[in-house]
Amino acid sequence: MPRITLLTDFGTRDGYVGAMKGVMASVFPGVTVDDISHSVAPGDVEGASLSLTRYWDRYPSGTVHVVVVDPGVGTDRRPLAVEADRKLLVAPDNGVLSGVLESGAKVRVVKIENVDYLARNPSATFHGRDVFAPAAAFLARGVHISRLGSRVSDPIRLAEPEVEEDGEFVSARVVSMDRFGNLITNLRGAGVEVAREVEVDGQSIPVVRTYGDVDSRSLAAVVNSDGRLEVAARDASAADLLDAGIGTRVRIRVSPEGAQAQGLGPMASEPERGK
Amino acid sequence: MPRITLLTDFGTRDGYVGAMKGVMASVFPGVTVDDISHSVAPGDVEGASLSLTRYWDRYPSGTVHVVVVDPGVGTDRRPLAVEADRKLLVAPDNGVLSGVLESGAKVRVVKIENVDYLARNPSATFHGRDVFAPAAAFLARGVHISRLGSRVSDPIRLAEPEVEEDGEFVSARVVSMDRFGNLITNLRGAGVEVAREVEVDGQSIPVVRTYGDVDSRSLAAVVNSDGRLEVAARDASAADLLDAGIGTRVRIRVSPEGAQAQGLGPMASEPERGK
Amino acid sequence: MPRITLLTDFGTRDGYVGAMKGVMASVFPGVTVDDISHSVAPGDVEGASLSLTRYWDRYPSGTVHVVVVDPGVGTDRRPLAVEADRKLLVAPDNGVLSGVLESGAKVRVVKIENVDYLARNPSATFHGRDVFAPAAAFLARGVHISRLGSRVSDPIRLAEPEVEEDGEFVSARVVSMDRFGNLITNLRGAGVEVAREVEVDGQSIPVVRTYGDVDSRSLAAVVNSDGRLEVAARDASAADLLDAGIGTRVRIRVSPEGAQAQGLGPMASEPERGK
Repeated sequence: MPRITLLTDFGTRDGYVGAMKGVMASVFPGVTVDDISHSVAPGDVEGASLSLTRYWDRYPSGTVHVVVVDPGVGTDRRPLAVEADRKLLVAPDNGVLSGVLESGAKVRVVKIENVDYLARNPSATFHGRDVFAPAAAFLARGVHISRLGSRVSDPIRLAEPEVEEDGEFVSARVVSMDRFGNLITNLRGAGVEVAREVEVDGQSIPVVRTYGDVDSRSLAAVVNSDGRLEVAARDASAADLLDAGIGTRVRIRVSPEGAQAQGLGPMASEPERGK
Repeated sequence: MPRITLLTDFGTRDGYVGAMKGVMASVFPGVTVDDISHSVAPGDVEGASLSLTRYWDRYPSGTVHVVVVDPGVGTDRRPLAVEADRKLLVAPDNGVLSGVLESGAKVRVVKIENVDYLARNPSATFHGRDVFAPAAAFLARGVHISRLGSRVSDPIRLAEPEVEEDGEFVSARVVSMDRFGNLITNLRGAGVEVAREVEVDGQSIPVVRTYGDVDSRSLAAVVNSDGRLEVAARDASAADLLDAGIGTRVRIRVSPEGAQAQGLGPMASEPERGK
Repeated sequence: MPRITLLTDFGTRDGYVGAMKGVMASVFPGVTVDDISHSVAPGDVEGASLSLTRYWDRYPSGTVHVVVVDPGVGTDRRPLAVEADRKLLVAPDNGVLSGVLESGAKVRVVKIENVDYLARNPSATFHGRDVFAPAAAFLARGVHISRLGSRVSDPIRLAEPEVEEDGEFVSARVVSMDRFGNLITNLRGAGVEVAREVEVDGQSIPVVRTYGDVDSRSLAAVVNSDGRLEVAARDASAADLLDAGIGTRVRIRVSPEGAQAQGLGPMASEPERGK
């Protein structure tokens, strides 16, 4: 039995998510719906994109992931359906699927436009209910993605800022901050293996294995569960202790041999539209 | 397989909703439960009532909707079960079901009182767990609503304030504010079709199709996905920009012919108890 | 079909809970997952422990409860699986299971250590995804708890502060505060039956049956749905009205005969590690 997941910035209180769930249950009465979150900050496409990278590929084949963070609703931004690594996704074409598109998975992208799979008179302000929910439920029921609309070759992709080399340092940026105040950087892959010491705003922070390896309320840099370098604090918020947030610069001293051997350098490409 | 939905003001952290879910799973082990929201403001019966109108009728026949916003728990306010348009609802008799009762659907209302379908010694302070959860699960299992108790002819209904005619203007009110700071008014139905311009606190706001039709951080009036006139702002909170909230007056210039032709006038009746 | 419940302090926005759900759905595609809450305050082991007592035993046999409030993740704190009253639980060994361990149910406790039931290279910072989620899904699929690892005889237990006798008074403490601002005390069992009057910070509060028995915005002491003495306010927050919170002392005048007859005295034992 396929499963649909939901990630939105709607909050739950207003009943908008309830409307989406009702539509999905009407199209496909037996469907199982997993809430991922409805507390994405309003319009935070980048944040939703990063969250999506954490779960989309953990689900089994056939899962349909719905992401509705959609400040351009009702304009000509396209509603998309994507197949990647035997999962399906529906979302507006605003970059929120970047993590999936950049994952290396073979993807097929279509524009959702076949009115057979939409609400009859879609509202101009609530495509979550009238476009994405029915499309997702039909996909979960087994409708093939190619039925939804024509191929799209240039979905919008957002890119993270690059890390910069700087002698025996690399200069990274905080790209996300989680509920615990952990500061998550754009340094990942080969780069994290050779990190030896971290510096934020002149303050030196040890690289350790887990939060518990430092004293309570002390700062620690770890390779986190995303495989990224993260600046955290045990039993406290690193963001608060460092008065830091998205965009904060993080300097990382790397073992120079390591850096050279692994070809450490830019880890992400410039923002671009399409492939 | 029937589905139960849950709307409460309990928050989730304290485990009260968990207790309700556990009771429902015990009464009916295979049941599917959809969370609508648990972040209704404490005691906000009006807000919950409006949220409910957004989803209750989107669900398929047989769905059981549970609404527990219940500041009068343990007093003589009646616990109700309602059948409307082949959906079932359980909620306290405090007006939270107004949108359903006023929807035009044929309704049957009963008082939940048959002890066979309640917890043995119901707590005086938690009918969500001891009254509404078991009653809902028995309804989902197929127990007929008439088994729960005797008919009620006068369930409490709340009414929205009326819109007032005022020459070529109508004067509406903000009745709800959503997570995005959108200001939702009591102008709906015929009235929204003839709206030409909107004014809040002396500020003129264009009537457009969707948020994206105005510049970023600009105000826009739209017919929203509820069919109501809504004052919004692109990429911003209209409530913040206008320092407005529930009760704020919204003046709407209407095309006078339109208004006359469509018999625009009071859109809601005075508060009344029962039919 | 067994059901898994989830209680964490992860919030939902960052996608960590989504990752856990994806892992569980991959191990056991048909599983039903009930969210209890993800808004436990970061690291609030005591709060999560109390919430758990409200729902764990309301669920049917075979339910698997997952609790991940885990400030010690990656250190040598043990990941536990527990069988109690035909329910199963997985959680870190930090006291969060105290309510279950102290419930009087016959318990079996094991350390989760069999790598067949874990992710291949568990992250040092996210055992929710790599240890607890797969272990729970395997338990729900029918793997016997004894397969997960060896017996543990000394799981950590937290204990509430004792109530103290004081002439015709007992002196209790607020141990929890819920979303409504209700102040929940450590007085329960026999003690609540003989409570006659409550005093907080010199202010006398009547003992009544339910919130509605006092005027709006007035204070009331009730025996709550946990069977505990609770100080509440009708249509308001008792915590705000009294400027009180966890730790606040609550004096309770008891009927002296009642107290004697029922052997009222210390209601909880000192903190201890293991049995």
